[in-house]
Amino acid sequence: MTPFLKMHGLGNDFAVFDARNQPLALDAHTARAIGNRRRGVGCDQIIVIETSPEADAFMRIRNADGDEVEICGNAARCVARLLLDETGKSAVTLMTLAGPLVCRDAGNGLVTVDMGAPELLWDRIPLARPVDTNLFALNVDGETYNCAAVSMGNPHCILFVDDADVAPVATLGPRIETHPMFPKRTNVEFVSVRDSGHLRMRVWERGAGITEACGSGTCATAVAAHRRGLTGDKVDVTLDGGMLTIELTNGRVLMTGPATLAYRGEIAL
Amino acid sequence: MTPFLKMHGLGNDFAVFDARNQPLALDAHTARAIGNRRRGVGCDQIIVIETSPEADAFMRIRNADGDEVEICGNAARCVARLLLDETGKSAVTLMTLAGPLVCRDAGNGLVTVDMGAPELLWDRIPLARPVDTNLFALNVDGETYNCAAVSMGNPHCILFVDDADVAPVATLGPRIETHPMFPKRTNVEFVSVRDSGHLRMRVWERGAGITEACGSGTCATAVAAHRRGLTGDKVDVTLDGGMLTIELTNGRVLMTGPATLAYRGEIAL
Repeated sequence: MTPFLKMHGLGNDFAVFDARNQPLALDAHTARAIGNRRRGVGCDQIIVIETSPEADAFMRIRNADGDEVEICGNAARCVARLLLDETGKSAVTLMTLAGPLVCRDAGNGLVTVDMGAPELLWDRIPLARPVDTNLFALNVDGETYNCAAVSMGNPHCILFVDDADVAPVATLGPRIETHPMFPKRTNVEFVSVRDSGHLRMRVWERGAGITEACGSGTCATAVAAHRRGLTGDKVDVTLDGGMLTIELTNGRVLMTGPATLAYRGEIAL
Repeated sequence: MTPFLKMHGLGNDFAVFDARNQPLALDAHTARAIGNRRRGVGCDQIIVIETSPEADAFMRIRNADGDEVEICGNAARCVARLLLDETGKSAVTLMTLAGPLVCRDAGNGLVTVDMGAPELLWDRIPLARPVDTNLFALNVDGETYNCAAVSMGNPHCILFVDDADVAPVATLGPRIETHPMFPKRTNVEFVSVRDSGHLRMRVWERGAGITEACGSGTCATAVAAHRRGLTGDKVDVTLDGGMLTIELTNGRVLMTGPATLAYRGEIAL
């Protein structure tokens, strides 16, 4: 039996395995079995904590569809919470496929993750062809949508809409995720501006579908909104699962939010 | 931390708590929190195993919406599997709000549950008014559907259709569940006959929505099909989650199928 923790950040939920002492090579098939909500553990992402020579730990992430992904901001808060509690430090560093993440205890059960600098260059996000990533037209099934694109280590396509609550996330999300404009597919955020300090966002996550919250997507959205002059340096973002606060400082993106343990488990893999 | 087992019968999944030594009074609010698939354990039903003076154990069942229900055939196989393994007996008796269930080890990991005699009297199912429970017309939003009604300790409304795979389970299911004809609401089964020994069934479960399998619903369906002369004494029923075999003998309904442990957990309640 392999122990795991079931955690969530605003309802974006994870099965977290600690492979620092007991190596765990999790293939896509096993990840899908774990991700199955009726026959496995059930989660949006499967996280494996590994040792890292250059950080407090390495955080490896697979989506419930089995694909390995670079980064997940909500998962970073959860893994950081474990390491902060374990070490008693006020800050820890997580290595990921997208680079290191410095995470700080923000008090009141909250964790602040330095999500690094956003990537705004079209070929680094990546997009299929050169456009102004601040505002470009995307043709989807004959309709044209005004988009922004930002990478936070993973690609995001942001659509500012009048009312995110009625945006067609379930139908348009997967069409944009798999659009040829995004060679590595993309996460898709539908965002409305409440005021200069408050956004409302709903998300279609690449490989996971609609989720209650996406940490890196919230960061990408705050960057895109700031770039268009819609919001200031600090913004609260209301997601289906709750609220994250994003601060833009010295060209970096700081994300603050909760990390919750749902239960402990052990499973035969 | 309270220990639990996550189990499933053909994908109909359960969080199973053993309250035989440590009493556990599970209210509707706590059941809903446990049933939440992102922030709790996530399951169709929450099962509490209690002591019983007249049986090997009492099986108490709440749906994920918090409502207490009388019986769940898939859960009975899971709880019986635990007690069969624990006691080494070849048969155990589970008490439920709907009466006792005798469960036998059927070999190959399968469990046979004696689901008792079906109830066919309209006021005992219960229906709101006297009809022929073998075949009656139900008006739903201006459309008329030919139905059968059977209770297996809980109410079932069975619709025989040309092709269960394309039946409108998600839309018609909840309309029939809450139809005034069913004062205690009802489970709804959509069934097509493949041959006299094989049915295809999809189910809308009262309080749980679409599930991959419903044990009592499969029994009710086999009874309704036999009553109409569509099938014989023994029938295989293919559900979304796999296959159950139902045998009608001496006026009783025997259900045989698998019971699977997904993982062990412990949660703070």
